[in-house]
Amino acid sequence: MNDKQLPELYTCISPALLHLYDVSKSIVVIIDVLRATSTIAAAMHNGAKNIVPVASVAECIRIGKQIDAITAGERDGRVAEGLQYGNSPFEYPRTFIENKTLVLTTTNGTRLLHMALEKGAKEIITGAFSNLEAVCHYIIQKKMPVVLACAAWKDKLNIEDTLFAGAVINRVREHFSIRCDASAMASNMYTLAEPNLYEFMKENNASHYLRLTGFGLEKDIRHCLTANTAPVLPVYQHGSLVKSHI
Amino acid sequence: MNDKQLPELYTCISPALLHLYDVSKSIVVIIDVLRATSTIAAAMHNGAKNIVPVASVAECIRIGKQIDAITAGERDGRVAEGLQYGNSPFEYPRTFIENKTLVLTTTNGTRLLHMALEKGAKEIITGAFSNLEAVCHYIIQKKMPVVLACAAWKDKLNIEDTLFAGAVINRVREHFSIRCDASAMASNMYTLAEPNLYEFMKENNASHYLRLTGFGLEKDIRHCLTANTAPVLPVYQHGSLVKSHI
Repeated sequence: MNDKQLPELYTCISPALLHLYDVSKSIVVIIDVLRATSTIAAAMHNGAKNIVPVASVAECIRIGKQIDAITAGERDGRVAEGLQYGNSPFEYPRTFIENKTLVLTTTNGTRLLHMALEKGAKEIITGAFSNLEAVCHYIIQKKMPVVLACAAWKDKLNIEDTLFAGAVINRVREHFSIRCDASAMASNMYTLAEPNLYEFMKENNASHYLRLTGFGLEKDIRHCLTANTAPVLPVYQHGSLVKSHI
Repeated sequence: MNDKQLPELYTCISPALLHLYDVSKSIVVIIDVLRATSTIAAAMHNGAKNIVPVASVAECIRIGKQIDAITAGERDGRVAEGLQYGNSPFEYPRTFIENKTLVLTTTNGTRLLHMALEKGAKEIITGAFSNLEAVCHYIIQKKMPVVLACAAWKDKLNIEDTLFAGAVINRVREHFSIRCDASAMASNMYTLAEPNLYEFMKENNASHYLRLTGFGLEKDIRHCLTANTAPVLPVYQHGSLVKSHI
């Protein structure tokens, strides 16, 4: 197939750059490896009925009461005040989350999802190493333009979300037309880091590595950098993330 | 020296993220490798009296008339309408530019310089591979916080400016405290690309590589990726870039 007939793929390395990309015809992949989209994948894989991503803590509390759901969220890496649970994949085992609704708010990931919604994204899914192959499979099947949207940290580029974008690109590149310097950077970075993602984060003093190890959360980091622990594809439909059957 | 006593260094990979950095106490290094800051270094090295960076073509024409200077500029990679010269280092040999004032406007670089000014940057210098060692020497001597500010392309990250940031970081890292994922990415990317910067740009379909080769400007790209062809340090003082004597 001629490269020009393939759908385009772009990498947006910060929410503050999302306005530069036309999302109206694209699948936007929300990427917040540490830890929102890893937690979303884990909760869904463990049987959550659906996950409602909300932008603010107040909204999380309000909606949680309305629909009798589990409210969870994080601000600056810790459980947000007024919420019941945090943003760790380990908090949502099957025995706890099965058939329940999770209302979730996080510093970067859920905020970016709402930005993509407001900008009229054609479709929104969430991605993390936990569901890497599911994301790749889905976007290849759909044959639509893709924007890999990194949640970053308060609009500053972060290593782990960029690495995930690179991991996707290195697996799907023959199915897309990729003319984007950020994608080239992400791809090269992932190739470099692939032998040991955790060590790469550590050696490079990744800001999120330092933040989470400061809270004793090495276990979370290792889990969130492991591929395909939660092979599901969360897709945003009518206000919540549900499991896709593609 | 304790790492905490060293001045901080950050890399800002797009003008759209400049607001995230406190520039009021920092030297801001404006980086627009292809080609504004390479051309500025070349013109200054070849004896230009000073270089006045302006934001718009209209302003360039107006100021050029006022002070009887050479007006030059580029929009989208070509000489801007109404201006005399373009944005190629080869247009400014000593026989032409010596003792003259150059008024310059470009798509990304001069715009970013004005953004840094408006945000109250403590000091502004310009950097490119052409004056790589001069930049490193200057910021090490000054012992002040540094923001490496990439001009990018219409706010999207580009490979060559990020590579230059990495080249600086790899040479100065022991003199600064660097806790910044963008700096880590730039550093790793440069280490990867260093054996052959031109080939790295080509293999990765760098957007600016494609744009300039489309205009037949391979020679400019090769020149702009060569280190230390113009060992001068342009510093912004009272409205224009002049040669620093540090």
